[in-house]
Amino acid sequence: MANTIIGVMGPGEGATQQDIRNAIQLGKLIAEKEWTLLTGGRNIGVMDAASKGAQQASGLVIGILPTEDREGCSPYIDIPISTGMSSARNNINVLSSDGIIALGMGAGTTSEIMLALKAQKPLVLLNTEQTLLEYIDTLPYPKPEYSSSPVQAISLIESIL
Amino acid sequence: MANTIIGVMGPGEGATQQDIRNAIQLGKLIAEKEWTLLTGGRNIGVMDAASKGAQQASGLVIGILPTEDREGCSPYIDIPISTGMSSARNNINVLSSDGIIALGMGAGTTSEIMLALKAQKPLVLLNTEQTLLEYIDTLPYPKPEYSSSPVQAISLIESIL
Amino acid sequence: MANTIIGVMGPGEGATQQDIRNAIQLGKLIAEKEWTLLTGGRNIGVMDAASKGAQQASGLVIGILPTEDREGCSPYIDIPISTGMSSARNNINVLSSDGIIALGMGAGTTSEIMLALKAQKPLVLLNTEQTLLEYIDTLPYPKPEYSSSPVQAISLIESIL
Amino acid sequence: MANTIIGVMGPGEGATQQDIRNAIQLGKLIAEKEWTLLTGGRNIGVMDAASKGAQQASGLVIGILPTEDREGCSPYIDIPISTGMSSARNNINVLSSDGIIALGMGAGTTSEIMLALKAQKPLVLLNTEQTLLEYIDTLPYPKPEYSSSPVQAISLIESIL
Repeated sequence: MANTIIGVMGPGEGATQQDIRNAIQLGKLIAEKEWTLLTGGRNIGVMDAASKGAQQASGLVIGILPTEDREGCSPYIDIPISTGMSSARNNINVLSSDGIIALGMGAGTTSEIMLALKAQKPLVLLNTEQTLLEYIDTLPYPKPEYSSSPVQAISLIESIL
Repeated sequence: MANTIIGVMGPGEGATQQDIRNAIQLGKLIAEKEWTLLTGGRNIGVMDAASKGAQQASGLVIGILPTEDREGCSPYIDIPISTGMSSARNNINVLSSDGIIALGMGAGTTSEIMLALKAQKPLVLLNTEQTLLEYIDTLPYPKPEYSSSPVQAISLIESIL
Repeated sequence: MANTIIGVMGPGEGATQQDIRNAIQLGKLIAEKEWTLLTGGRNIGVMDAASKGAQQASGLVIGILPTEDREGCSPYIDIPISTGMSSARNNINVLSSDGIIALGMGAGTTSEIMLALKAQKPLVLLNTEQTLLEYIDTLPYPKPEYSSSPVQAISLIESIL
Repeated sequence: MANTIIGVMGPGEGATQQDIRNAIQLGKLIAEKEWTLLTGGRNIGVMDAASKGAQQASGLVIGILPTEDREGCSPYIDIPISTGMSSARNNINVLSSDGIIALGMGAGTTSEIMLALKAQKPLVLLNTEQTLLEYIDTLPYPKPEYSSSPVQAISLIESIL
């Protein structure tokens, strides 16, 4: 039987200190649930922090890289998937996850939230900008769950998997 | 020298009657400028309407299809590109356009707006939901232009190409 | 109704002088048939030569680029499609063509021949290495057509479209 | 540090009984080396057999699926990556592998051999058709290694990683 794969999506360069702390904790909690973590694989921001948190808690970490090789890959990735597809790999991140937690603000992250809505994937948002939440409410898709802490995010994603 | 390619992005199933009217007019105006129109290629909503408007004004129309073949292709497409890549083709729509006009509300369309911001493409929004505009203002990217009619959208895209 | 799109596939760096001459003539003949030419879009080898031949005969030329932008794009392309997908774009070349003419020897070209067999696309080979022809004969797919000149290749592709 | 990922590429529907036996043994040997196996992920032919061999020897197995979901996924995959990209995913198979073993005959497999040559990946061929070997010899790339048994293939791939 396949592993349960939880995608954590969030900004690279634009991640805040709060995003980084949340991502590390999400990675740790995902590993403790014995789920496999999936991220965008880069050595920066939420991708890197979630991978670090999961790997340090002995979890398995997949990174779906935009690059043709492993340049810029986080050192906390066990399974680097080199797509060579740039931002088109965002759709693979979404399709390959059993459930998705998105945190922080960024254009790439928001594109992944939109693709997750479209693919009707279990989706939990963490500390998402209020205006984006209001916008999502106007879209004709099942609503995602909203959380305000990593612990709550994990609890919610578990309940909707 | 390559054609000037203008992408028109908007909802399929979720398009409103106003979106359809705007899309037909955008297609017509793009053709009259002797630009080439690029859409997501499907026979529905904004993609279909913009293609119809452009082809009926003797413009050239490219459709970047999500499918492996031409199933569901708009009859108003001259150049159907079958990607077989599903929503990952959204990034090709963005990368291949010299400038992008996005109208209406939809998850796919919003993912394209986000990818356009990330790729720093000339971008004009038409009748976009207020909450999304406010959200975009919080992102660390050059601001897109805002328009309230097809004529204004074309004028703005011309000024920033 | 969509244009008839003929893909010409062949080597970039490894093209021979004979390949270049054949590609120019194929492009010219495709334009004269009022078909649209599709190539891999780069400014080198068969891609560049076929595009030149077609554009100089007033044909319309699509280039499916491996890059995110137009760097390295042939100057003879009317419609550059920037995929940002590297060699994964080879499958788009194949899927988007109504018929395919492959000439010369190269790893990328051979991958496109294989994808064309798999997609069961009308396929004409021109001056293909004998060992590859023998190998193709062992594969469980309808046989491609074999030609020894651009004129014959065009005649064959027309007969099987 | 990332896992060592070995890709095993081979036919689905067209696999012979010998291919299946070889694939099962390759999977087993890869797991015993504590490498991670990567396949095309489908529940058929070489992909399925190699995955079975590796998982039954307690190895970790990644499947890069052509589909948007897990339909048709081998039951022996731990990490299913749903690309939704059809045969364009073949390039991801190649780029994500530290080394590749290709066995048997098929159009998809041959496209992967060609992409592996182009990406200059360590490549071992097992029981490959003689005409294809002769064709590869004419291509301007470093030669792959040739093997006649799974044990020899593993030994060769280990020597060139």
